[in-house]
Amino acid sequence: MERQLDHELNFLKEKLLKMASLTEESIAKSIKSLVKRDSTFAQEVIEEDTKIDLLEVDINNLALKLLALKQPMANDLRFITSAMKISNHLERIGDQAVNIAERSLELITQPLLKPLIDIPRMAELSQEMVKNSIGFLINNDVSSAEELWKTENIVDDLNSQIFRELLTYMIEDPKTIKRAIELILVGRHLERISDLSTNIVEEVVYTVSGKNIKHFHQEK
Amino acid sequence: MERQLDHELNFLKEKLLKMASLTEESIAKSIKSLVKRDSTFAQEVIEEDTKIDLLEVDINNLALKLLALKQPMANDLRFITSAMKISNHLERIGDQAVNIAERSLELITQPLLKPLIDIPRMAELSQEMVKNSIGFLINNDVSSAEELWKTENIVDDLNSQIFRELLTYMIEDPKTIKRAIELILVGRHLERISDLSTNIVEEVVYTVSGKNIKHFHQEK
Repeated sequence: MERQLDHELNFLKEKLLKMASLTEESIAKSIKSLVKRDSTFAQEVIEEDTKIDLLEVDINNLALKLLALKQPMANDLRFITSAMKISNHLERIGDQAVNIAERSLELITQPLLKPLIDIPRMAELSQEMVKNSIGFLINNDVSSAEELWKTENIVDDLNSQIFRELLTYMIEDPKTIKRAIELILVGRHLERISDLSTNIVEEVVYTVSGKNIKHFHQEK
Repeated sequence: MERQLDHELNFLKEKLLKMASLTEESIAKSIKSLVKRDSTFAQEVIEEDTKIDLLEVDINNLALKLLALKQPMANDLRFITSAMKISNHLERIGDQAVNIAERSLELITQPLLKPLIDIPRMAELSQEMVKNSIGFLINNDVSSAEELWKTENIVDDLNSQIFRELLTYMIEDPKTIKRAIELILVGRHLERISDLSTNIVEEVVYTVSGKNIKHFHQEK
């Protein structure tokens, strides 16, 4: 019985891992579309979001089935309910990548405002955060979770920097306002991805250690 | 045994209701602060967010306890796991109210850009959406859930209208850019609240009817 449950829990883990890797890919592609000014990548992100959505439904159904049929206790129970919440965070990260893809489709139709440096850097960091947050769960080890809060701070700082820079563009030339706002929104979407990754880590810390660290970090 | 579980499920419902009413209050106060240019209300929203956060922790602990000790089936199981997710949506709505309060504190220090008409209207509608979404759960009736999607569309349209209007301010006078962006962000926070309310309704429809309507409505 116990070994059968372990088998099903591993199956759940695999699905989460698959979902995380799809969302990482979506983030990367949405930014690639923005940097290379290529709508194909953005279209792919929008189309592939359905796969991420369906994986969330899938994970929830499997979790409910395990709760109903296996009546899991303690750690297993915590893992299953956390899986439901983490899949929800991943689904939202996918939505943010779709938002970026939509901004990109809009920006491609207009002249380039400025070469993008901080935004791709932010995207790399956010993508890494998603990867690491799920990595903690898979390896059952949250000893380096602290690192992730530091990365979140870097992402926040980059976002403020992007905002201030774009503000100067807008003030100098009102013709840049629309494009600058689109880029400000891209910055905010990436900041949301980094926030959502910290939500995942909070869940993982709770699952692995039983400690609730939620609400110790101010949400944005 | 069954009647004991009913008692505990009602207790869970009451906590959700309490949490929803606190978040409604936070939305109202954050906008009151913006309209009356009074920092007291904004400070209250920021301070009272801890209560909302703690209720989420509370609801989650109670739900886990029920899952572990009562081994609920079918509808009860669905209700308990949905309560965990709904409390998470409510907590995020509370965070959005905090975001609005912070924007308000910033705007109060600067001259008034324009009289606010659409933003209070958007806030009223979003607040109503939170109230109704939880009402469906309490009354175990989702027959008027369709109405809520219509309200969401109105909120989205108001947000686009606010955005376009503020864009004209910025183009005409770059001195308005900072304040206009703050107001654009308030509009986006309210739109997020309306989105999160539709997420709650999706959960409620699933709990009450067993039907999954998630991902039928495009998320923003």
